[in-house]
Amino acid sequence: MAFLRIFLFVSLFSVAFSLENLDSHLLPRPLIIEYSENVESQLREIDDELRLRCASWRFAGEANNLNPWKTIPRECVEYVKEYMMGRGYVVDLETVSKEAGVFAKGVELNGDGKDVWVFDIDETLLSNLPYYSAHGYGHGLFDHVEFDKWVEKGVATAIEPSLKLYEEVLNLGFKVILLTGRSERHRSVTVDNLINAGFRDWHQLILRDSEDQGKSATIYKSEKRSEMEKEGFRIVGNSGDQWSDLLGFSLSVRSFKLPNPMYYIP
Amino acid sequence: MAFLRIFLFVSLFSVAFSLENLDSHLLPRPLIIEYSENVESQLREIDDELRLRCASWRFAGEANNLNPWKTIPRECVEYVKEYMMGRGYVVDLETVSKEAGVFAKGVELNGDGKDVWVFDIDETLLSNLPYYSAHGYGHGLFDHVEFDKWVEKGVATAIEPSLKLYEEVLNLGFKVILLTGRSERHRSVTVDNLINAGFRDWHQLILRDSEDQGKSATIYKSEKRSEMEKEGFRIVGNSGDQWSDLLGFSLSVRSFKLPNPMYYIP
Repeated sequence: MAFLRIFLFVSLFSVAFSLENLDSHLLPRPLIIEYSENVESQLREIDDELRLRCASWRFAGEANNLNPWKTIPRECVEYVKEYMMGRGYVVDLETVSKEAGVFAKGVELNGDGKDVWVFDIDETLLSNLPYYSAHGYGHGLFDHVEFDKWVEKGVATAIEPSLKLYEEVLNLGFKVILLTGRSERHRSVTVDNLINAGFRDWHQLILRDSEDQGKSATIYKSEKRSEMEKEGFRIVGNSGDQWSDLLGFSLSVRSFKLPNPMYYIP
Repeated sequence: MAFLRIFLFVSLFSVAFSLENLDSHLLPRPLIIEYSENVESQLREIDDELRLRCASWRFAGEANNLNPWKTIPRECVEYVKEYMMGRGYVVDLETVSKEAGVFAKGVELNGDGKDVWVFDIDETLLSNLPYYSAHGYGHGLFDHVEFDKWVEKGVATAIEPSLKLYEEVLNLGFKVILLTGRSERHRSVTVDNLINAGFRDWHQLILRDSEDQGKSATIYKSEKRSEMEKEGFRIVGNSGDQWSDLLGFSLSVRSFKLPNPMYYIP
């Protein structure tokens, strides 16, 4: 949007300049002022329309209406940046955490230690925003090598509203199972990162093993949930930032979709 | 928001007035001006925060994160009104219709006439916005008697982006089945309303029969979809404005959630 604005302003300056050169008395001053006011309001309209369309795109993603996508729309980069770095993302995280907490409190636990809440890790418990802010907020294809380097630093921060929910469900007596698309070879750095970020007492941490490579996240995670069920667990809640964390088979009683307009995992 | 603004302004006028009466020289003029600028910016901040929280609430609804609710939050009435009557709602309807169309075109139909697209009716094909705009946009409990009177007028208008999708899937060779929570006794007025709004050639129109009364929409609609499957239909697409149109069992291959921040049907 900023780019568009600058581009249009520069174009207009050239127009204004050429008009001045032609004949400074040709166009009376009030007309020029009116013209420039029109342009300002036109720019605002373009800005508003772009914001509306990018919000609509983001909504469609959160409601699982979008077809598979690889990068965010080029014209929405600024919008996504504003959302992720501003209050919008934080408030949305708080809302989903609060609703999940209300649901969790209303569940009557069996008391046999078999009631489970599943959490995804990236953009659910841990934030990779420093990585994505340095990589165009989802503009540009996902770079496995670069992202792995970031993961191996082990410095992702807690998503605070999720940490709050995490502690709530633990205190209510749920068993917590972490189910992530991260690779088994990142187990140790992931454990350290989670502990440093304040997470504790999970029952199990499931990462992608060699046999899970190549599977879609939906299939891999459904299979793992199916194994939990076979072990006698009841999957009551499931929190994830991707619909592939939540859909497929062996579904939870209730699932909670955390916001993430930066990337899509099938 | 407008109400809050007026209320705060009136309060401030009283404060300013009482100060004037006390001693007009007590507070130097520049201080008063600074004070009123602060108040303006404070009001803007409150406005922005409210807008953010209402947007977050709406998002949470579209992503199926909200716990069951009966009325929209009182402080979001103005926000929901602006959304429904402005470009936001239209753009969101266009986005979901476009994404559904892209998906539909990519489906390889079997050619045996058994590929089905299910549509809900209210707030999916037909708009009851005139009714809801006269009833606080979802503020206030749902009034069955009043709403039935509106339905019986048979004047609901087509949701244009949905009509476009409807015609697209028909042209692609899908069978269209309409599955609505409306009562069987409204069949005739519903058929007339649909035809007047431009809908045609549906394969079947399923309304709630006496035996379906009292069932949740999720169960009623799942049962009906299950019957379709037993008749050999493959439910490829499903469009609805409520998650209860889309979830439960006998799910479609892909479902599309139309926006609706005005009411929630379990």
